[in-house]
Amino acid sequence: MRAVRARTEALVEGLTAEDMGAQAMPDASPAKWHLGHTTWFFETFVLGPSTAAYRPFEAAFRTLFNSYYDSVGPRPPRPERGLMTRPPLATVLAWRRHVDQALERLLAGDAAPPMLALGLAHEEQHQELMVTDLLALFARNPLEPSWQRRPPATEPLPAAGWNAWPGGIGAIGHDGAGFAFDNEGPRHRVLLAPYRLGRRPVTAGEWLAFMADDGYRRPLLWQDDGWAEVVANRWVAPEYWDFRDGEWTMLTPWGRRPVEAAAPVAHVSWWEADAFARWAGARLPNEAEWETAAEGLGGCGRVWEWTASAHRPHPGWRAPPGAMGEYNGKFMAGRFVLKGGCWATPPGHVRPSSRNFFPPSARWQITGLRLAGEGQ
Amino acid sequence: MRAVRARTEALVEGLTAEDMGAQAMPDASPAKWHLGHTTWFFETFVLGPSTAAYRPFEAAFRTLFNSYYDSVGPRPPRPERGLMTRPPLATVLAWRRHVDQALERLLAGDAAPPMLALGLAHEEQHQELMVTDLLALFARNPLEPSWQRRPPATEPLPAAGWNAWPGGIGAIGHDGAGFAFDNEGPRHRVLLAPYRLGRRPVTAGEWLAFMADDGYRRPLLWQDDGWAEVVANRWVAPEYWDFRDGEWTMLTPWGRRPVEAAAPVAHVSWWEADAFARWAGARLPNEAEWETAAEGLGGCGRVWEWTASAHRPHPGWRAPPGAMGEYNGKFMAGRFVLKGGCWATPPGHVRPSSRNFFPPSARWQITGLRLAGEGQ
Amino acid sequence: MRAVRARTEALVEGLTAEDMGAQAMPDASPAKWHLGHTTWFFETFVLGPSTAAYRPFEAAFRTLFNSYYDSVGPRPPRPERGLMTRPPLATVLAWRRHVDQALERLLAGDAAPPMLALGLAHEEQHQELMVTDLLALFARNPLEPSWQRRPPATEPLPAAGWNAWPGGIGAIGHDGAGFAFDNEGPRHRVLLAPYRLGRRPVTAGEWLAFMADDGYRRPLLWQDDGWAEVVANRWVAPEYWDFRDGEWTMLTPWGRRPVEAAAPVAHVSWWEADAFARWAGARLPNEAEWETAAEGLGGCGRVWEWTASAHRPHPGWRAPPGAMGEYNGKFMAGRFVLKGGCWATPPGHVRPSSRNFFPPSARWQITGLRLAGEGQ
Amino acid sequence: MRAVRARTEALVEGLTAEDMGAQAMPDASPAKWHLGHTTWFFETFVLGPSTAAYRPFEAAFRTLFNSYYDSVGPRPPRPERGLMTRPPLATVLAWRRHVDQALERLLAGDAAPPMLALGLAHEEQHQELMVTDLLALFARNPLEPSWQRRPPATEPLPAAGWNAWPGGIGAIGHDGAGFAFDNEGPRHRVLLAPYRLGRRPVTAGEWLAFMADDGYRRPLLWQDDGWAEVVANRWVAPEYWDFRDGEWTMLTPWGRRPVEAAAPVAHVSWWEADAFARWAGARLPNEAEWETAAEGLGGCGRVWEWTASAHRPHPGWRAPPGAMGEYNGKFMAGRFVLKGGCWATPPGHVRPSSRNFFPPSARWQITGLRLAGEGQ
Repeated sequence: MRAVRARTEALVEGLTAEDMGAQAMPDASPAKWHLGHTTWFFETFVLGPSTAAYRPFEAAFRTLFNSYYDSVGPRPPRPERGLMTRPPLATVLAWRRHVDQALERLLAGDAAPPMLALGLAHEEQHQELMVTDLLALFARNPLEPSWQRRPPATEPLPAAGWNAWPGGIGAIGHDGAGFAFDNEGPRHRVLLAPYRLGRRPVTAGEWLAFMADDGYRRPLLWQDDGWAEVVANRWVAPEYWDFRDGEWTMLTPWGRRPVEAAAPVAHVSWWEADAFARWAGARLPNEAEWETAAEGLGGCGRVWEWTASAHRPHPGWRAPPGAMGEYNGKFMAGRFVLKGGCWATPPGHVRPSSRNFFPPSARWQITGLRLAGEGQ
Repeated sequence: MRAVRARTEALVEGLTAEDMGAQAMPDASPAKWHLGHTTWFFETFVLGPSTAAYRPFEAAFRTLFNSYYDSVGPRPPRPERGLMTRPPLATVLAWRRHVDQALERLLAGDAAPPMLALGLAHEEQHQELMVTDLLALFARNPLEPSWQRRPPATEPLPAAGWNAWPGGIGAIGHDGAGFAFDNEGPRHRVLLAPYRLGRRPVTAGEWLAFMADDGYRRPLLWQDDGWAEVVANRWVAPEYWDFRDGEWTMLTPWGRRPVEAAAPVAHVSWWEADAFARWAGARLPNEAEWETAAEGLGGCGRVWEWTASAHRPHPGWRAPPGAMGEYNGKFMAGRFVLKGGCWATPPGHVRPSSRNFFPPSARWQITGLRLAGEGQ
Repeated sequence: MRAVRARTEALVEGLTAEDMGAQAMPDASPAKWHLGHTTWFFETFVLGPSTAAYRPFEAAFRTLFNSYYDSVGPRPPRPERGLMTRPPLATVLAWRRHVDQALERLLAGDAAPPMLALGLAHEEQHQELMVTDLLALFARNPLEPSWQRRPPATEPLPAAGWNAWPGGIGAIGHDGAGFAFDNEGPRHRVLLAPYRLGRRPVTAGEWLAFMADDGYRRPLLWQDDGWAEVVANRWVAPEYWDFRDGEWTMLTPWGRRPVEAAAPVAHVSWWEADAFARWAGARLPNEAEWETAAEGLGGCGRVWEWTASAHRPHPGWRAPPGAMGEYNGKFMAGRFVLKGGCWATPPGHVRPSSRNFFPPSARWQITGLRLAGEGQ
Repeated sequence: MRAVRARTEALVEGLTAEDMGAQAMPDASPAKWHLGHTTWFFETFVLGPSTAAYRPFEAAFRTLFNSYYDSVGPRPPRPERGLMTRPPLATVLAWRRHVDQALERLLAGDAAPPMLALGLAHEEQHQELMVTDLLALFARNPLEPSWQRRPPATEPLPAAGWNAWPGGIGAIGHDGAGFAFDNEGPRHRVLLAPYRLGRRPVTAGEWLAFMADDGYRRPLLWQDDGWAEVVANRWVAPEYWDFRDGEWTMLTPWGRRPVEAAAPVAHVSWWEADAFARWAGARLPNEAEWETAAEGLGGCGRVWEWTASAHRPHPGWRAPPGAMGEYNGKFMAGRFVLKGGCWATPPGHVRPSSRNFFPPSARWQITGLRLAGEGQ
């Protein structure tokens, strides 16, 4: 527990209270809000129900740091999270200490409270969002500040190529052993035709070839709604890319860097991933293809990989009772499933059954793709 | 061929050129546009390629009546279809004659041209859209004109209840014998857990109970994006319903009528259908559940039935070459599949494999639902 | 009375019911609506109050053809005037006959009813709007239909140059003798410094020089809100102008024509007129400068001339009682005064005291400008 | 100079860097931005031109803190001022010191540089904006923080009633002696009919009577565009008012307080001021009426008083050369003139000729009204 909580705060080391208060866009949240909301989650769903004696740090925070739980009650409009200059950062950090101590007292007792694991996994989700939301913020600043010293170490990707999978009857979904989010289960059988998957995620170099071949200018490669986004937003490259001094560069938490051809492409929307796959004569894998093959996927975990599957409940899924039914359950339309995790995902957070999900236009997450095709 | 073409024109009998020129909203089209666009389809995709000697009726129409085919070229903005007062209706009707005659000459030859069946099925699709688009138009007129004498004759629905289906390995999708739209194939195997389906579509009476039980006021019943629609649009009942003189009424092509409790509810969005199912302790069926059970479904064909399945390509689907790849292929994200057809669907147009699709907010189509649940 | 009413219908000779039903944009109205609304005005404000025995043609029209009179009651949303395909054109024309006859009976009596003159002047205003609204409609049709045979005959403009005026104390506003709209009075004294006015309106040739000198690309020439319009709408020339085959052309009711350098420029917004004047080292005249000099203005009456004056009530103005207080009185903020009339203005309709008014972004009216400067 | 600069910083005493970084809405700016922009003004327009040896503190700030001067170059989008978490507050404060020292060196020389007085007056304008923008920010925070200890001391308003003024020929506008903003001149003669002015601004108590008499529910009291604002924004009272525990309260910099019936009403838009005047059987004064009577106005200086006059150039006004032409000159359409100053206006900042201006929908400024009427 301490490690997870501490990691959250480590992510914002070196940032000012100003940096942590601003909201890049309605989809993103300020870092201070993430610090508060993850604390709110423990207070509301772990300490409140588990500890008769627990006294909330400040009653108003129940409303202020509620994200989207109608079961809990009202909340500020999402686009105005950056206007909450009060409580100040120091108060939010003090709240974190207050809640940490109460959690430690609780844990010193007997069995772990039922929601503790979820609270920690929830906080880990927000750790990744803090990274992507801060990048979105700094990208709108003409000074393009960086706040991380260096990129995470990586190993080279496997060579290009395909792996074939026989299909048949398999099983996906979480089997209930150990922690998982509700939307990962239940485990269930799936029937797959033979297929093949790329040995590695699509690289930035391959993406440059797509751009050079007019990928962003040929409507026939695109879904109709995706093409409308290309036109309306004048997309010509992935998010955070810019052509400067004769080369394509990209903004990262460690500054603006030349695009690295050998690395997985990131910050592409589902629309772009889908168009790229069509251009490449391939398609996106569906979730079952990806998940049943998960153990053998090369270069996995560097970028979330868009799948061809809409985020819908697994067969037999039932919403958890109470507020937890809102955790994932009300976001099961209009989003696509992503698999595998990315460099900003906390270690140990992701399983083959993990189902990340975003609308098809989202580009501020660390999202790439892997190709798929029919097998023989 | 003649019968299909004649049916289109029969649908607008009694309407004026004014009625046929107006566009209710960007999603809908004027009846005159439908008359022209279906003719454009034959000219562009059947007569042009098949008949060396064919001379287009008027060159400019290739652009004017293009709906969304980037392969064919530019087109007027969709929301401005109601501004094309020229060509006048009479010219569009003369164009229809010109094309009909050319088609008849073509058919008098040997084999039917490859795209003829598609052209006719396409025209049948637009016949239904003409009905729904006209209703959308007249609903915005304070005079609430009606243009059909009486509703189609119907048989009583079966009694409420469930039918159980064993699941297992089945097959869905069109097998290639006879006409089908590209997105209906290929036929492929599916694996289903045991399930049950409602014996009939949900009725308007059942919908009134949902309304009476505050269905439109309880966010926990709704998907997050659906609830946002409820709030923004102040939905309190299905589209075209209004509470007058102490009772709920609905606008139809044959005028405003009291809501008929025993008839299938219609004009509900996917968001509403999904919320209703949750309220009822059930869920929407997925496409495979519906399609494998299609032969045994009661009350089928009165309203399109929303399914739980996003409109995505069937496994193994490949886009048809050329412009026909755009027919369905670029609408495979952000829409849900509907099955079964409705009272406005031309007879013989729908198969179990038919896949109608609309965004989850659409309410102007004749859309209802059937409940599903897990079997034992 | 007959002449005015007949002129309205003459303006739409040769147009179809389809042409007359469509609405180019929310600011414009369908020709059929103009035919109905002017009739509504007589029925509501002349016949109803004056004639105990008068029976409205159709009760629902009181609501359907109300433009903006809150005193009269509700009305359809303005952007949906093009959706009223019912009542059909023929019914609106029959209504006109019905009202004409009742008016004639009324006039056969003694004194003219008090509102008759206003009703006729109102109808004349709408005659001009019918022309501009039809042009707006046909401009959105790729076929660019024309509906008038030839332009009105004109005399050459005077040569460029300035006329000087001494200023001093003068008087503007209508003095109450003969008909005038309420906002033209009361007549009141004004104090003016010496000034000069252009001998003629700015010509299209002069406008081409402004364009050639990057007038649409230099923000320093523009008001801040005007420049935002230039950028957002990508204005590069007056409305209806297009560069084709090596020359600038403009769409008119008699078809697309090369821009005529010697004619007054038209279809420019106030933002553009103001920017042009700044570019030319001059300014727009204010209303009092224009009106006190009205008798000596050359080339007057071809285009409405934007002034520097906001449309505000004249000193001492009081809103007429009842609904007539809404006629002009609620449009006295956010609009600029135009003087002089244009080629589409009915003969005899305009006085020196006439005050036309539109928001500064409006371009679909026949609007140009005359320069002014300080005198010595 | 030191006093003005120090006063700016005194205004934000007790606020955190977080408070000073957030932007309530596109029209408002963060306090940190105000601190930077006023400094930018001195650096760009005073130090740069006057001092060959001056080295800008940081080259990038020339772009970052440009508000709207196209003459100076590009700038960040106005709605994104709250996203500039870098430079941090401490750097902006250091920049202020750097510029202050350079100004002091410059002043130690001979004559005051030409733009110094303007730079100080500019900073005073932003002092007032800092107050209103902070109030706008805190009003969006559910905690409703206050940041001032107590309201400024005030004297009771005069009793209600009218003062009559004879009209005739007078003069308004600044005569050039001492500092004034460019838009205050030139002084020029005006001709006025006899009129009367309220002895004091309209009070909150009088506003409550307007509300009680359904002022916000009667469209006939309103300009057409103003009524659209009432409906769209559901205005029922001035900005920052809320009905709590049986009484109307208002948010102020010193917290939420009961509405004080005897104080001038504030935070009303021009639309509301105009509607109130109509309801009261009066009208707003025009600028010349107000300014010629300025010496005799009771209760003046507590709230800016909306006038009936559009913000247009005075007769004979010429834009100052260079960037200063943009200071006021590009905001001379779509805004109304306000006179007199408010409690947040720095002492000595306002003259009778001062012309504040805002669009008619603005409510976050400290804006009220005084009634006028015709004299006898």
